[in-house]
Amino acid sequence: MVTQAGIFTFDSLELDCGSTLGPVDAAYETYGTLNAERTNAILVEHAFSGDAHAAGEGGWWANMIGPGLAFDTDKYFVMCTNVLGGCRGTTGPGSINPATGKPWAMTFPPVTIADMVRLQKKVVDKLGITKLLAVAGGSMGGMQALEWAVTYPEHVAAALPIATTCQHSAQQIAFNEVGRQAIMADPDWNGGEYYGGKLPGNGLKLARMVGHITYMSDDSMREKFGRRIRASEGVAQFEVESYLNYRGYKFVDRFDANSYIYITRAMDTFDLTTRGSLTSLFDGARARFLVISFTSDWLYPSYQSLEIAKALRSRNCDVAYCDLESRYGHDAFLVEVESQTQVVGGFLASTFRELTAKRGAPARA
Amino acid sequence: MVTQAGIFTFDSLELDCGSTLGPVDAAYETYGTLNAERTNAILVEHAFSGDAHAAGEGGWWANMIGPGLAFDTDKYFVMCTNVLGGCRGTTGPGSINPATGKPWAMTFPPVTIADMVRLQKKVVDKLGITKLLAVAGGSMGGMQALEWAVTYPEHVAAALPIATTCQHSAQQIAFNEVGRQAIMADPDWNGGEYYGGKLPGNGLKLARMVGHITYMSDDSMREKFGRRIRASEGVAQFEVESYLNYRGYKFVDRFDANSYIYITRAMDTFDLTTRGSLTSLFDGARARFLVISFTSDWLYPSYQSLEIAKALRSRNCDVAYCDLESRYGHDAFLVEVESQTQVVGGFLASTFRELTAKRGAPARA
Repeated sequence: MVTQAGIFTFDSLELDCGSTLGPVDAAYETYGTLNAERTNAILVEHAFSGDAHAAGEGGWWANMIGPGLAFDTDKYFVMCTNVLGGCRGTTGPGSINPATGKPWAMTFPPVTIADMVRLQKKVVDKLGITKLLAVAGGSMGGMQALEWAVTYPEHVAAALPIATTCQHSAQQIAFNEVGRQAIMADPDWNGGEYYGGKLPGNGLKLARMVGHITYMSDDSMREKFGRRIRASEGVAQFEVESYLNYRGYKFVDRFDANSYIYITRAMDTFDLTTRGSLTSLFDGARARFLVISFTSDWLYPSYQSLEIAKALRSRNCDVAYCDLESRYGHDAFLVEVESQTQVVGGFLASTFRELTAKRGAPARA
Repeated sequence: MVTQAGIFTFDSLELDCGSTLGPVDAAYETYGTLNAERTNAILVEHAFSGDAHAAGEGGWWANMIGPGLAFDTDKYFVMCTNVLGGCRGTTGPGSINPATGKPWAMTFPPVTIADMVRLQKKVVDKLGITKLLAVAGGSMGGMQALEWAVTYPEHVAAALPIATTCQHSAQQIAFNEVGRQAIMADPDWNGGEYYGGKLPGNGLKLARMVGHITYMSDDSMREKFGRRIRASEGVAQFEVESYLNYRGYKFVDRFDANSYIYITRAMDTFDLTTRGSLTSLFDGARARFLVISFTSDWLYPSYQSLEIAKALRSRNCDVAYCDLESRYGHDAFLVEVESQTQVVGGFLASTFRELTAKRGAPARA
């Protein structure tokens, strides 16, 4: 698996809020080799706390991207970019505002899922790719996949929105709001001006703890922790308590609190239906769709995916919908490798055959 | 409805932790009139954030307790006490430690559901009631009802555990732990020493926000808030955000942060099964049981109530189990008046008939 990693810098990016941001960095990684016809490129989109490091050791989808895996790097050229507003190489609130020479912090303009995708389009253009074989992602990554299919219908052959929604419910917004309030209540947050000083670690830790609960299922938590006790620094705790506290602390090392605020806002304000009814929205969609949800995912419940699949079907779009059996809750899109590989592998192969046939033998079309 | 309210003071109370606490106050209210035979007394048990004010204006179960209501005060004498560890009249971490003349704060001994019930038993004894017609409560109130039935089988004719469990799951513990960490991360918490100073309002507010989400269902939140926006102090917010923030702030006025920590700990450590398997546990139970759950309650899911009902049935205990249809999530035990009134009203009436028959006409038994 040939891997490349780097940062593209663009002069400017138009944002939904009306501002123009510039210059803008986009951190990316690629795996596999782009074929001569540039027809084997797949963009995978990371979820809320992910980054461009999708494959290889420590990659968030390492079990899905690689030689012989679902996103087979022997066949496909797989790309991932860190999202706009992020903190892992792409421009975000922790980046330097060229006008002041200081981090943007909360003066960073609000960003949307569409802004993230607009930046990705620049990366794809830069790589000379006219049409993506597929865009795929889970959770917030799935929102981006949907946004791609709707906004750039001519540039996407297939979209794989996984464990996602076309708009957050009140419950999804509510959990994100708790995270934001936890960060902003931390005195070390200091209105977002903490760069170079003490990080708002307590707030960010709390936000992450809430997140983790919503990513698991009641069942998977019972299996993993039950009511087992462990002694931690001489104090007996439930295992689930020490796990959540530990995971919360670790998160502070790798994630920026202001990015947490900006990116959760982007998720909460994402709403494909503001551009028209869900059905009319897909009128212009040209891609094939593989919509995947997981039975025990209560954060992005299956009915939200079914809603997308139904809207696509009502417009005679080419859509397959799989509600995969899983006990792992929302985390399933990261851990249910076998069942996802089965449906994703075949779907990509047939899309690739179709795309190649269209280009290679137009007389047969 | 004749109402009495007051505080009983007891010299001492033995606690599960081995300490003896004293003196101990127990705030109580009563509604209706105790009959001459003292056979019509019902103890209702409040949930986590409730208090002794169960009926009448502003009472947490005002729609269920009163003349002609489910707990009919024309027939029954209904009592409620604030729990041990609470902050509404009963001794808790905010009370004065007689040894120091200062609030106990975090030096207050850990309390359990069994300790709470032991204090209630003293109140019931003081009122000269040998056998309660019923103990009833939702959520943590249901834990107390179960505890009564198991610990004082000769003193309870009927138990109504509603939307509850015999032990918290990892998920239930996890949500409570987030609340505790939120409070303890607030610098104003100050290790629990905030009495007379600035309250840890940010932390307690956050804890309450998380709580509120878990009390509602995905459905009821959609119905109540959807994705509606409202302007608050010039800033556009989702309605669900301003609602949660508002309810969080209001909670700070009426609840003590240290009580939050102590009482959630009592819930998390409650585990009837540590005294034996759930089935063997009910070997000694003499009460009739009405177990109630609600279909959309994901915090105390129906399977937890079913588990209790099954264990009781396996021991040939007299148990009715109702999984009531509701969209209101865990809040259902507070708002689903009609369906609860139907099942509770009939159950109490038949229990009262049976109890009276036993006493009044022993020859027929």
